[in-house]
Parts: sequence; C-alpha cells; structure tokens
Amino acid sequence: MRTVVVTDPPRTPLDQLDALATFGVATVHEAIGRTGLVGTGLRPIQDGARIAGAAVTVLSWPGDNLMIHAAVEQCRPGDVLVVTTVSPSLDGSFGELFATALRHRGVRGLVTTGGVRDVAELRELGFPVWAGAQNAQGTVKATAGSVNIPILVGGVVVHPGDAIVADDDGVLCIPRETVEGAIAASEARTLKEAESRLAYQNGELSLDRNNLRGVLADLGVEYVKASNA
Amino acid sequence: MRTVVVTDPPRTPLDQLDALATFGVATVHEAIGRTGLVGTGLRPIQDGARIAGAAVTVLSWPGDNLMIHAAVEQCRPGDVLVVTTVSPSLDGSFGELFATALRHRGVRGLVTTGGVRDVAELRELGFPVWAGAQNAQGTVKATAGSVNIPILVGGVVVHPGDAIVADDDGVLCIPRETVEGAIAASEARTLKEAESRLAYQNGELSLDRNNLRGVLADLGVEYVKASNA
Amino acid sequence: MRTVVVTDPPRTPLDQLDALATFGVATVHEAIGRTGLVGTGLRPIQDGARIAGAAVTVLSWPGDNLMIHAAVEQCRPGDVLVVTTVSPSLDGSFGELFATALRHRGVRGLVTTGGVRDVAELRELGFPVWAGAQNAQGTVKATAGSVNIPILVGGVVVHPGDAIVADDDGVLCIPRETVEGAIAASEARTLKEAESRLAYQNGELSLDRNNLRGVLADLGVEYVKASNA
Amino acid sequence: MRTVVVTDPPRTPLDQLDALATFGVATVHEAIGRTGLVGTGLRPIQDGARIAGAAVTVLSWPGDNLMIHAAVEQCRPGDVLVVTTVSPSLDGSFGELFATALRHRGVRGLVTTGGVRDVAELRELGFPVWAGAQNAQGTVKATAGSVNIPILVGGVVVHPGDAIVADDDGVLCIPRETVEGAIAASEARTLKEAESRLAYQNGELSLDRNNLRGVLADLGVEYVKASNA
Amino acid sequence: MRTVVVTDPPRTPLDQLDALATFGVATVHEAIGRTGLVGTGLRPIQDGARIAGAAVTVLSWPGDNLMIHAAVEQCRPGDVLVVTTVSPSLDGSFGELFATALRHRGVRGLVTTGGVRDVAELRELGFPVWAGAQNAQGTVKATAGSVNIPILVGGVVVHPGDAIVADDDGVLCIPRETVEGAIAASEARTLKEAESRLAYQNGELSLDRNNLRGVLADLGVEYVKASNA
Amino acid sequence: MRTVVVTDPPRTPLDQLDALATFGVATVHEAIGRTGLVGTGLRPIQDGARIAGAAVTVLSWPGDNLMIHAAVEQCRPGDVLVVTTVSPSLDGSFGELFATALRHRGVRGLVTTGGVRDVAELRELGFPVWAGAQNAQGTVKATAGSVNIPILVGGVVVHPGDAIVADDDGVLCIPRETVEGAIAASEARTLKEAESRLAYQNGELSLDRNNLRGVLADLGVEYVKASNA
Repeated sequence: MRTVVVTDPPRTPLDQLDALATFGVATVHEAIGRTGLVGTGLRPIQDGARIAGAAVTVLSWPGDNLMIHAAVEQCRPGDVLVVTTVSPSLDGSFGELFATALRHRGVRGLVTTGGVRDVAELRELGFPVWAGAQNAQGTVKATAGSVNIPILVGGVVVHPGDAIVADDDGVLCIPRETVEGAIAASEARTLKEAESRLAYQNGELSLDRNNLRGVLADLGVEYVKASNA
Repeated sequence: MRTVVVTDPPRTPLDQLDALATFGVATVHEAIGRTGLVGTGLRPIQDGARIAGAAVTVLSWPGDNLMIHAAVEQCRPGDVLVVTTVSPSLDGSFGELFATALRHRGVRGLVTTGGVRDVAELRELGFPVWAGAQNAQGTVKATAGSVNIPILVGGVVVHPGDAIVADDDGVLCIPRETVEGAIAASEARTLKEAESRLAYQNGELSLDRNNLRGVLADLGVEYVKASNA
Repeated sequence: MRTVVVTDPPRTPLDQLDALATFGVATVHEAIGRTGLVGTGLRPIQDGARIAGAAVTVLSWPGDNLMIHAAVEQCRPGDVLVVTTVSPSLDGSFGELFATALRHRGVRGLVTTGGVRDVAELRELGFPVWAGAQNAQGTVKATAGSVNIPILVGGVVVHPGDAIVADDDGVLCIPRETVEGAIAASEARTLKEAESRLAYQNGELSLDRNNLRGVLADLGVEYVKASNA
Repeated sequence: MRTVVVTDPPRTPLDQLDALATFGVATVHEAIGRTGLVGTGLRPIQDGARIAGAAVTVLSWPGDNLMIHAAVEQCRPGDVLVVTTVSPSLDGSFGELFATALRHRGVRGLVTTGGVRDVAELRELGFPVWAGAQNAQGTVKATAGSVNIPILVGGVVVHPGDAIVADDDGVLCIPRETVEGAIAASEARTLKEAESRLAYQNGELSLDRNNLRGVLADLGVEYVKASNA
Repeated sequence: MRTVVVTDPPRTPLDQLDALATFGVATVHEAIGRTGLVGTGLRPIQDGARIAGAAVTVLSWPGDNLMIHAAVEQCRPGDVLVVTTVSPSLDGSFGELFATALRHRGVRGLVTTGGVRDVAELRELGFPVWAGAQNAQGTVKATAGSVNIPILVGGVVVHPGDAIVADDDGVLCIPRETVEGAIAASEARTLKEAESRLAYQNGELSLDRNNLRGVLADLGVEYVKASNA
Repeated sequence: MRTVVVTDPPRTPLDQLDALATFGVATVHEAIGRTGLVGTGLRPIQDGARIAGAAVTVLSWPGDNLMIHAAVEQCRPGDVLVVTTVSPSLDGSFGELFATALRHRGVRGLVTTGGVRDVAELRELGFPVWAGAQNAQGTVKATAGSVNIPILVGGVVVHPGDAIVADDDGVLCIPRETVEGAIAASEARTLKEAESRLAYQNGELSLDRNNLRGVLADLGVEYVKASNA
C-alpha cells in the first residue's frame, strides 16, 4: 500500500464552512437527502459544541499516531482533523499537546474513530472533540500511514477538503462539490421548520400539517376505544 | 397484526404522578419489590432530570415515525411518551419539533428505545429524554403501527396509563393499579433511608445496622491479618 | 474458595497519594511505562473529578453487595473503594447511603465494574465514582466474598493498598512499591510536557520536535501534490 | 417480591406441540402476525435442531441456579425449560447433569438467557439448547426465585404452558390459547410457500408474483442504464 | 434521495471470478495491499464455503426488503447479492424462497449486513451466506431504495460489478478494474506461501526466514533467563 | 517498558498436562474453586476440541505480530501459545503458516484475544484455536513486545508454564504450582458427577440429592396451585 501525505487538497471555502456552522447536523442531513452521517459510534466529549470545518484526513495504524504528527503540518485555519485507523483501535492517540498545536493553526476540532486523552484539559481549552473513547492508553510512532487521502469513518467516505459539521447529534460529511447546494437546502429547511415550530407552539397537529390522517386510514390503522382494544 | 390507536386508555391520576415524582427511581424500585426497571440500554440525554408521568405508548416500524405523529394527538397534560420499535432501531425518530408539540400539550418527557436528534435544542427546551442513542438519522412515515397498546421496553411491559418514573438511575414502570401502594411504600422507605443516612453520617456501620456480622460468620468469611492472607 | 476479610493491608502513604493527585491519569500512565490502565469499560458519572487513593478491594458475587458492607469497616481516610464481581454484573450494588458512610470515614471515591444508583445524589454529595453503569437495580446480601485480596478490574490486577488515580481519562492502578518512582517520573514528564506546550503554542511542529521527518522518510511515506495522489 | 413454585400450570397439549414442531420458527412467526420472537441474543449451541414444547419457566437470581433445581421436579414429557435471571447474567447455570435429569423426564430442550456449560456433552447427548453464552463459570444455590410465573425472555413475555418453537432462526413463544390458530395459519402459509418455491424454481420473479412493479413505480424508483446512473 | 435500479452495470468477467475463487480471502487481501476487507460484523452461516462473484448491490430501508425483490431480476450467473440498509437493521430480510429464485439465476451467494432466516434450509440448499444475524424477524415491502449503486458494507465501498470473495475468514471486495492484477498478485503470494509452508514443515523459523532477529535487536528486545526476568 | 524474551520458564510437566486433558474445562474449574476462567470473549473456531498444554505467553502491540515470530522459537512439545495485545485488537495476527511451524514443534493449540485467519485451513490441519475473531486483516512486524512474561487474558493472569485447558466451554488457566492438586480434585469431582449422572438417569431429583428442599423453605419459596398464583 503506497503511503502518502497530500499537501494541497482543494478545500471547501471558509465562507461556506461558516454558513454551514449556523445549522445543526440534523437539519443539514435532512436537507441533503440523508447521506453522509457518521454512525453512532463516535460521541462528543463535551455538550453543546457545534462546528463546521474542512476535513484534513488521517489514516493510521492501530496503536500508532505517527501520521497525526505529520497531519498537523498540513492543517490550516478552518480545518477539522479527521482520523481513523486501518483496523479498529480505541487507544488514546490524541491529547492536549496536539490540541495546543492545532489551536495555534486555527483548526476547529477533531473527529476520530480512536480514543482521546487529557479530556479535562481539552474541555478547558475549548477544543471540541468527537471520539470513539476517552482513553489514557498511549500510542507509538512506528508505522507508516497517509494524510489527505479518502478514508472511511463510521461508514462514510470522507475526502480531504470535504465539509464536516458536528454537534450533539453526530458528525456529518458533505462532499466539497455539493456544499453550496447543501447550504441553500438547509436554509430552506430551517425556514420551513420555523413555520412548523410556530404552528406546533400554537397547537396544530403534525397529523394535519403533514396530511397523515389519510396515510393512516390507507394503512388500515383503526381508532378504537379502550373497551374494544 | 391489527394496528390500532386506542383513544381513551385509563391513566394514573395526576396527583399520584406528582407524588411519585418526589421519589427517585431507585427508591420506588426498591419500595415495590424490584420490578419494572427498564434495562441499562436507555440513557438520559441530560443530567439531573426527574419526572413522573402516565404512559402513552407507541409501537413503530424501525426507521419510521408515522405512529409518533398519531400519538401526539392522544397526549394530555401529565403524560410521558413511551416509544419502541418492532425490531431494534436507533434512528433519530424524534426531535425538537415533536417536543414543541408535546410541550404545548403538557407532556412531561420522552422514553424511547430509538434515537433522538436536535439534542442541543431539546436540552435548551428543558424537555427531558431517555433514549437509546443521539442520532441525526431521520425516518420515513410509511408503515402502520399502534398507539396505546401494551409494549415491551427494555424487558418491561408498559401498559398505556401506567406510571413512568425516570431519572439519572434509569426508567421505571409502575402498573397503574399498584401506584397507590407504591407511593405508600416509597414514603416508608424514604423515612427509613433518612434514618440510615443520619446513622451513617454519625459513623454507624451498615454491618451492625443490618445485623450482617452473623451472616458473614455463617458463610464462613474469616477475618485475617495481611500476614496470614 | 476461601473467603476472607484482610484487616490490615499495608497502604500507599497519604503524602504519596496527595502527590499523585496533582497529575492526570494520562501523565502518570505514560510516566510509568504504560501499565496499569483499567480498560474503557468504566466511565466517570461526573465530569472533571480527579482523585488519588489507596485501594480497598472487594470481590463480590454478582447481584450481591454483602462484601461492600464488610468493606466499609476496613476503610480509612485516603482510601478508594475498588469493587468487582466474580462474573460480570451491572446491578446497582452501591448508592448514596454507602457514599455517606464512606464520606464519614474519609474515603475519596469509588471504582466499580458494577453499577451505581442514586447518581443525582452522589453528584450532589461530590463523591466521585467510576462505574460500569448507572442502574437502579438493587442487590441482595446472601453470598460470601472477600475484602482486601488482589482482584482483577478491567484487565488490571489491583492489590489492596495500591495507589489508584482516576479522572476523565480513566482509572489507573500503581503498585504500592512503585509509587515513589511514579511520582518522580510524572514530575519529569510534566516538566517536559510544559516545555512542549509552550513550543506548540509558538507554532513549533511535533514533526521537528520529535525528529519524525526521518522516520517518515525511512518508512517510505511520500509527500505528493493532490494532482499526483 | 413473593417467590413461588406453581405446580400445575395448564399446558399446550402434546398433539398441538407435535404439530408445531413440523414448521420452522420463521414460518410460524409469519403465520401468527410476527409476534413472540425472542431477540437475537440467544444462539443455538448446535446446528439443525428444531423443537416445540410447553414452557416451564424459571426466574433466577444472577449467578444462582437454585430455582432450576426446583424446576426440574415440575417438568413433564413435552416440556421446554425456559430460564432467565432478574438481571443479566451469562454464568453457566446449566450443564450436562441437568440435561440428564431433564432427558429422564421427557423434556425437549432448554432456552436460557444465561450461559450453559458441558457443551460438548450436551451436543453428544442430543439435548438441544438455545443460550446466551457457552461459559464454564458456575453458580451458587443461595437465593430465592420462582418457577412457572410469567417471565420476560429477550423482549417476549413467556407464560408457563405457552408453546415454544426453536430452531436455527431463533426462539418463538406462542401463547397457549392461540396455538390452534397458529397451526392452521402455519399450514396455510406452508402451502403458499410451497407454491412460491415451485414458481421460483421455474424462474418466476417475486416482483411479478407479489405485484411489486406498481409499488416501485408509485414510490418513484427509476430504472436507468449505468451510463445515466 | 433519488432511488434507482441500474440495469446494466459492467461486471468482473466470469473467468476472473473463477480464478479468484481458487484463493482464500486472506491470501487475496494480502496480495492486494490489505484493502477492501469487510469488518468482523458479518459471519458465515456455514463452515468451509468459499465463493467469488460479481456484486449486485442493494440499498434497503431497515425492516424492508422491497429492493431485494427488485434486485433478483437484475442478477445473472456468477453474481453475488450484496445487501445493506440505510441504518443498521438485523431483521431477517432474506430467506429460502429468495435463495431458490437466485439459485435459478446462477447466483453464487449472499452477503448482507442484515439478518437471514430459514437458515437450516439455506444450509441444506448449499446456498452460501455471510450475514449480520440469524433472525426469523420478517420485513415489509413499503419503502424505496436502490439497486446497483455504490454501497458501504462494513466500512468498505462496494460498486456494482466489483469482485466479491468470501470464506471463513471474512468478505473481501476487489474493485472491478483491479481484479486482473489481484489474481496475478495472489498467484505470486500463493507460490511464496507454499515455499514457506514447506520450510516451516521442515522446522525453519520465521524469525530467520524473515530476517527478524535484527529487528528485535534494534528494538531493544532482550533474551533473558527466567531467573533474571 | 522493558521488553524481553524469557527463554527457559519452568513448565507444567507433560504427564500432568496429559492428565488434565482428560477432564473438561467445566469440571476442572469447579474442582479448583472457580478461578482462572477466561471470560466469554474468546470462542473456539472448531467444535469438540479439548486440549491441555503449558502456556508460552506473548504480549504484542495491536496490529503487530512480531513477537509471535519470536515466540515460535521458544515453543516445545506440549505447549499452548497464549497471545494478547497491549490494547484490544482483533486483527488476524495468526494463520496457517504459524500453525504449520508450531505443529512441527509439537504445540497443541492457540489461545488469543486477537483474530486468526486461514480458518478453513486451520480446521483442516486440526490445529485447535480459541480466538477473539475470525479476521483476514493482516498485521505488521514493527513494534517490540515480550514473550514468556505474565499476561492478562480475558481477566485472568497467565504465567508462562501455567497449565491451559480449553474446550467448547471456554479456556481455563491453572497456576503451575497447583496443577497436581487440580488433577486430584478433578478426579474426585468426576467420580462424584458419575454417581450423580447415574442417579439422575434413574430419576432421582437434585432437589433431594443436594438437600435443597430445606433451603427453599428457609428462603420462603411457596409451592402454590396455578389457581392461587
């Protein structure tokens, strides 16, 4: 397997990333037709963070963080570091010193299928992380891997430069070429949700708002009294 | 399988629900003889919430939230929505718009074996949720199910109208007919625990308070010095 | 199987425990050569706690907390209670009344492969806990076990009197005889990390600081343009 | 919690059990409207067994098999022993000696959420088992439980006397009062499946046989050439 | 999300598939640089099967097998059906009737992240299956999906027409364009392994054969007597 | 961490190993007081194998099998190779070529918390394996570890030279110094079980044989008719 560090992948522009950051993962995911959502295996180590950034991708050997060291140099303001391993590993390959270096470079957060350590310090630093585990177990720097190649994260292909949105609902990858459309669709959806929210605050039923009574009837769902249930 | 919406199940009275809400899940569970505790698969999405409500039950198809739409209409003040699927599914079938509609109707929270999304918004709204996952993955509205039939949640049968108590220790279902006794038993237990708390704050040992020294001796447990261990 | 309560195991001295508590789990773990870390199965029930204490160990039957009652009497100021079961069990064998009694005796926290209940009360009390689950399910007091014998916790052998350090990164056991060296090594590592932190805040790269460019070259990692990837 | 041994629960008649045993779990499950299927947590310890029997139910404490001893006496020819624990436990509470005793009484197999041991001997004996684990870990005989009360097994309520069907596809519980209808429905379904099998052997498509082309069209599924995909 | 059935994806040629089938998954995986291996979540329902075929891919809704019905029509001799769902589902969406239809069309096996039922019948039929579960739980035919689009299976992207090799070691996907090279590399590797096998049968050590003694020395591994360990 | 290969650990004598091999894991485990049983995470890749051997232990880095190469040289007739990794890893670090080399040296089997590949070939070779996974994913040979130091396997400390017994019920480690007593206790237990087997074949009840009727009465278990349940 050829191992490379790609030094100049095209990235989602910063203004598009900033626009995405105003929406939540759930909204964008719906808006783009429900693709690109990383599975439920990654969890935020903090509550309430919401970020959007351009993916710098890392493929490492399990128990080894050599390529994260190589990846730091490739990071620019607005990036999100996205790390996975060739086979599953929850070792703590990332900690506060990495976050300090990335913060200096304007990186917005970390998404990793592996583990992180120095969790209290990362929270204090305000560096947002979505990870497979909180784990003090350290790693070596012995085996080659790649930076900025397409990787698979929780069942999703992430290309370098793709837009990553992450919050309490999960982590979402939006292919770079489709971000503009995703923003437009998210705006439209947000507007529609605002109208629905108002309606529901006033007591309207989603059964009526979505014309679902006919669906229920067509499917043969009966309304009965408890005495006939 | 006949699919129905039962419109008028009898419910645990509001004053009984309010009385239950003053106790924790652990206390009521002990008081009623250790039955009705939902397994450890559901987790609160917030810290410190404690609610009691009457169950409105929903049985949905995996990946489908049609019946939650139907259930909203059946909810009244003091209810708790309790949702499960025919086969396991962690899709995010519930979000902030549903919570907005339920809040309007006086519903006290959600218990679901499935996933929820808009987690940040749900926390901000103060709508308590116990769920199988935080997951942005959405659902369709295509397949029939039932509302207000008995369902199985984490190894517990929940009948519509049963009392649900939920806090950081888990989710408990108390059959409607037995709630009155559960309150009385919980009060007695709370009193007894207060006495024990005082005793332990003063240094008494539970070994003595519960007469366990004899039990240990009967079981052949020996007290030895480290040099003889 | 002989079941014993060992009443006088030698303990890590208090001044050494206090010194350990100033470091995090990740730092000490690295400093002592990456041994003694309990696996990722135990999770803190609170954020941000960091403790160090001498282990009082308990081996219980699943679903039974008789031996925790016996262990309380063996606890002294500066201890940490460390509990496991003969076979896996997530039952809630520990709650607020135990914590009240242990607090009276100066115990610093609980590490258990089992479950805990009264989680809201434990957090309010400020009694730190690392546990396998939050679970209201109670236990009986019927079967013999042991106190202060060597036990296995998440793949680590814990001897009574060993030093336990625990925080958001996990739980670490340091053999009593090696604590002095662990403190010295942790101090050295903390110093070195402080220097690295400063360097990274100023933009130095870990690639250079750790002389990793040669490693990458030796392993055949190529730097390429995206057009050649 | 009152603990009882119910000595004379009504049972599904033997001729009905024998009729059920001629169908597979998948067929009966479909025929009765997809209810009563135990979740995927239990696995057969052998390949190719298929049994039907009347449930003798056991509720035990974790790590304790006292009540299995009590249950043996309650077993009759045609029964299936169905065991679960108050909280999850994979201890090996059942082995070859129990199977020997049950075989003497004409019992047809074991379904348990716990563990079994002597697996090689059980296979040699030809005593079919569906269990949560293969596990040599033994149990004590110290805590009370019940025999022949309704229990929950993998999300299904099993009443004593209910019909249990088990094979490589899983374990199914059919309420005693509904077995006659289940047999008739299974016969009808078997006939229909035989016709379908013949049709498919001759190349007919299920798309046509089930009139699904119209469903696909209504849902907007398009047929396209690879060049347009 | 546009839902399509692609009717004419290019396929790996039959002679290449037949050549691949002579190697095991482990050999081909090594030969092609350790890519394309589906994770350990899928298990064979039989022992000892080894197949190679061209992928016909199916993306279904959880709990729904409508698109498998559509996919059957697209299958040709030498194909392997590869099925996944939009979100995780272990429902038994595939059984003996599907296998009968596929057998008629010359299909070589099934790879699915979902569940299968009629397991005894599938084994008797000799239709090889790698699946996420054995599960009698059935599915509906209500929601749209796609056939012959790229899908993600256990962390691997499978394009329609790609070569699938499966045996007791797992499931491997080889991109169609690279199959020719994979066969050549597998042949070379098989030859090399045969030489190694002979050497090891004669007592040669892999330490010597792979020149690893120097590696151990460079890494500082010491050979010591037990008395000095 | 010092990394060593210990070349001459004392071993359980061959005649003791051969004696142990005549008992099953469940019997020996009971006989020695229920200690030393590896957890349920390891599974046999074959049915019906039963072996006993002296442990040669290996501690590897995840994703790396360098130390298995080093361990082969240390193996003698009657040994069992016991492998684990510093942090969890299911990579296929062992396959048919290793088995060929070990077979030449008289090794009786493999116990590993990691993965194995070439499963079909291993079964054909008749080389028994208990492993964490079947997984074609290969490993590198880049990082140091140790051979013949004490390791932790599924919650059990295995010292080099300890006796390992493994069959379908699991894997058991018996400390070398206690093997003689274990054999005597296993013989006694086997005799007792043979008597019980005969008794149960003749219809005696374990309730009577173990004097459990009094236990049930003391615990307050009531025998009731179904009409009073």
